[in-house]
Amino acid sequence: MSTTPDWIMIGGEGPESYNQHSSYQRALLEAAKDKMNEAIYAKLNLELISDRFSVADFGCASGPNTFVAVQNIIEAVEDKYRRETRQNPADNIEFQVLFNDFANNDFNTLFQALPPGRQYYSAGVPGSFFEHVLPKKSFHIGIINYAFHFTSKIPKGITDRDSPLWNKDMHCTGFNQVVKKAYLDQYSIDTKKLLDARAEELVPGGLMLIFGSCLRDGVNMSETSKGIVMDFIGDSLNDLAQQGFIEQDKVDSFSTPFYFAEECEIRQIIEENGKFTIEAFEDIIHPNGEFPLDPKILAVSFRASFGAFLSAHFGHEAMRKAFELVEVKARKEISRIQKAKPGMQYFIVLRKN
Amino acid sequence: MSTTPDWIMIGGEGPESYNQHSSYQRALLEAAKDKMNEAIYAKLNLELISDRFSVADFGCASGPNTFVAVQNIIEAVEDKYRRETRQNPADNIEFQVLFNDFANNDFNTLFQALPPGRQYYSAGVPGSFFEHVLPKKSFHIGIINYAFHFTSKIPKGITDRDSPLWNKDMHCTGFNQVVKKAYLDQYSIDTKKLLDARAEELVPGGLMLIFGSCLRDGVNMSETSKGIVMDFIGDSLNDLAQQGFIEQDKVDSFSTPFYFAEECEIRQIIEENGKFTIEAFEDIIHPNGEFPLDPKILAVSFRASFGAFLSAHFGHEAMRKAFELVEVKARKEISRIQKAKPGMQYFIVLRKN
Repeated sequence: MSTTPDWIMIGGEGPESYNQHSSYQRALLEAAKDKMNEAIYAKLNLELISDRFSVADFGCASGPNTFVAVQNIIEAVEDKYRRETRQNPADNIEFQVLFNDFANNDFNTLFQALPPGRQYYSAGVPGSFFEHVLPKKSFHIGIINYAFHFTSKIPKGITDRDSPLWNKDMHCTGFNQVVKKAYLDQYSIDTKKLLDARAEELVPGGLMLIFGSCLRDGVNMSETSKGIVMDFIGDSLNDLAQQGFIEQDKVDSFSTPFYFAEECEIRQIIEENGKFTIEAFEDIIHPNGEFPLDPKILAVSFRASFGAFLSAHFGHEAMRKAFELVEVKARKEISRIQKAKPGMQYFIVLRKN
Repeated sequence: MSTTPDWIMIGGEGPESYNQHSSYQRALLEAAKDKMNEAIYAKLNLELISDRFSVADFGCASGPNTFVAVQNIIEAVEDKYRRETRQNPADNIEFQVLFNDFANNDFNTLFQALPPGRQYYSAGVPGSFFEHVLPKKSFHIGIINYAFHFTSKIPKGITDRDSPLWNKDMHCTGFNQVVKKAYLDQYSIDTKKLLDARAEELVPGGLMLIFGSCLRDGVNMSETSKGIVMDFIGDSLNDLAQQGFIEQDKVDSFSTPFYFAEECEIRQIIEENGKFTIEAFEDIIHPNGEFPLDPKILAVSFRASFGAFLSAHFGHEAMRKAFELVEVKARKEISRIQKAKPGMQYFIVLRKN
């Protein structure tokens, strides 16, 4: 899991690409902050802000974005408290942040990077966010940053050449209806489990704030710029297989454990689950457009997001070569990316029923 | 910090030494379990056992002993609940375990080693246990396993050859009164801070269970077998310096951040602090004696406890050589170790006032 928008670069190669890119990141974080402030001010019951106030980040990775997100939430809660009670939150409220991710997440790095001078207690909560990871009524505001598109596993058959569900692509492009249904079914099951677990762990009246990527209704993944670049990654892997650098079998059986749903699909899943009310479901797309249109930056960004998946499957060197090819393809087809259908960066506010 | 009795081996070298030694370990864990059962049965208010029950291990290290300790506590709490309410604890109670240690502790190893099938929620709490690390009223039973002898730092002057407080030894032997006072003062300040923090973090009526090593009243550290072996370590470092293998200056400025207090000193610190009532302060020394009397096992055990300190200061190779010399010295003076004054392995039960 990653707290990072899929098109955002963390570390990695090329200071120029990174610097160009980080203005997008900052802008998105600022937009997110404003949205969270508004949501907390309008939707959080004041009575919930007393004694101990716990914020939980599900899919926190190893920082540093999680620290920015939780700090923004805490400041928004303090601000609301200060404005509505005219009391100093520091006198009355202890903040606690629960950082959740898989048990094999790098919590050591997370803990050592905790901001000095922070005004909250910290705890790391190991475990899959599709399961219960906290006792009942453990937190007041939960956040999921760009991790709400994950599935708990790749649907059965998807990676099997002999199955009718076999997906020749590395992601759900949206064009193969059988593949799409398998992904959507898995996503629906997993997301309902996630919502069930959070509903128990949240205090009554508590909020879930979810940032992520999805598709506008009726749009296929491969019609968006993100989907096009993901197809470039798959094409590059096939190129490397043809050059004999990696095995074709491995490429054929490579698929990713996530599903970028359409907005209506996400709404339907939340409604069918029934544990939460959708208080907001907004498009917070950056005014500069969804993606930077520089092929180098695109390659670097997608490498930051998907490089680890590729490395695990094909090794580091193949991953590196693949993203070199992605950059070439993006350069060649930049106008296609430019004319792609827009994707959607959402901010969802859920209130526990 | 370490959850391990100072004379207990974790991993490391020599399967025979380890096997011989592990019977001591098992016996001590069994003794500890019985003591904890009794304490929980007699001292824990039944009303505290409801909904969520949180156990916190302060100085948990990276396992696996912490898992045994917290499992024993949970079973004792369940047993009491079952006997006194005739209800099934699994129907009504969610257990949560808070694993605390320094932020640079290896939490990754801890989380990946969490016992499969455990019936509790887990969280890692990074931070020094001399400070507040949890919000108020966060846990019901706290445990400190062989980490209650730590100080937050080495007292000022102790490692400085030009100071009147300079300690030529690597630990507080008890013979130099100026050194002893400096260590005791630091230990008293730190332990009171620790107790203040735990008193706030505990629910009213909650218990602290503390296992550790101390001295019987009036006994000096270097009169006990543990103190004698620690002196062997210091002597071995001096030997290595004379052989030119390490610098004498480094040996002179090496001291350890812990103080094995006398029982009366510990009692006085707890009483002066005033936040807890001492419900029990027992000697749980193993019937086979405090230490195995095999020089090899002694060297291996002390290496497991103090090897990391030595490595950090002198490097791994010097540490390894030092413990070879310790074994030789222990072999030569085994009868002195045999005739040493007994130390004390304590079990303390504190109830929050």
